[in-house]
Amino acid sequence: MPPVYAALVHHPVVDRTGRVIAAALTNLDLHDLARLARTYGMGGVYVVTPLEDQQEFARRIVSHWTTGPGAEHIPDRRTAMQLVQVVGTIADAVADVEARDGRRPRVTASGARALPGAVRHADWRDLRPAAPQLLLFGTAWGLAPEVFAAADCVLQPIAGTDAYNHLSVRSAAAILIDRLLGVPASDRAY
Amino acid sequence: MPPVYAALVHHPVVDRTGRVIAAALTNLDLHDLARLARTYGMGGVYVVTPLEDQQEFARRIVSHWTTGPGAEHIPDRRTAMQLVQVVGTIADAVADVEARDGRRPRVTASGARALPGAVRHADWRDLRPAAPQLLLFGTAWGLAPEVFAAADCVLQPIAGTDAYNHLSVRSAAAILIDRLLGVPASDRAY
Repeated sequence: MPPVYAALVHHPVVDRTGRVIAAALTNLDLHDLARLARTYGMGGVYVVTPLEDQQEFARRIVSHWTTGPGAEHIPDRRTAMQLVQVVGTIADAVADVEARDGRRPRVTASGARALPGAVRHADWRDLRPAAPQLLLFGTAWGLAPEVFAAADCVLQPIAGTDAYNHLSVRSAAAILIDRLLGVPASDRAY
Repeated sequence: MPPVYAALVHHPVVDRTGRVIAAALTNLDLHDLARLARTYGMGGVYVVTPLEDQQEFARRIVSHWTTGPGAEHIPDRRTAMQLVQVVGTIADAVADVEARDGRRPRVTASGARALPGAVRHADWRDLRPAAPQLLLFGTAWGLAPEVFAAADCVLQPIAGTDAYNHLSVRSAAAILIDRLLGVPASDRAY
């Protein structure tokens, strides 16, 4: 099957008032998403930020764990962090997948709001074989409306037991990647 | 159904050499687990650490978000962080559940290793109605062997596409809570 990539998007995202911002990087987000990507056999993880100092910060984290002291200290982390690339925009991530896989990826946006036409998680799996996939996860208060408007596919939000819907991007990415790429419960020996 | 609680265990856990340690608190772990617990309708989250300065640190984080400046700044975080309690030992968490719910909880340990007799995630759901439940998540390199030995139930590890099995405790908790407490895929409208 064509590979699936994740993008951890720091711009354009919204703050809690709905204003479009560039969010600051969180070190643990990179680790958690890289380890998820490695565990679920994903093609790679893009860290998307247009801010040059933040790109530099992300590259320092990645190189610490891939070629620096961290690579020797925790070899398991190295094989996860090797999946991470730093890019300026979502379009750069799309172009990079196209350069690697020869086809433009289908872009899927995830978020906490229910939007018209959103795709059920189980149905997304059926669409997967068609093309490489790029899953977008928004930091701060989520992806900006323009990202949802431009995406090829929008996922249904993760619903809990009531209307509360405020998971961290780390938790949401873990749950969605497991639902979209993990072995379905009915087929699991475990 | 009786409530399900989570415990984020900082002792006894092992370091990467297998030595039993008390791990340091990670601020984001508390937030992520509290938000997961709130989303999935759990009874509460116990932060387990015997170190008094770490207990004090955890209580400062919780009170910042429940009664301090954070409560007003992000009200959604308040209702999640109100679920968090700080205790010294796993036994204290068990005793607290028993005091609240009138019955000793069944204790379930989670980890990255496959252990004999481990329970499938789908099967755990069937056992749930019997009693209150306490799910243990280990920080650092996971729960110490003595915790698995004393638990009423040990879960199968989360398996990915190959032998790589190094998720963060944040990711593992998100995936397991979704699998154990979320609406099964077959019943989801989303």
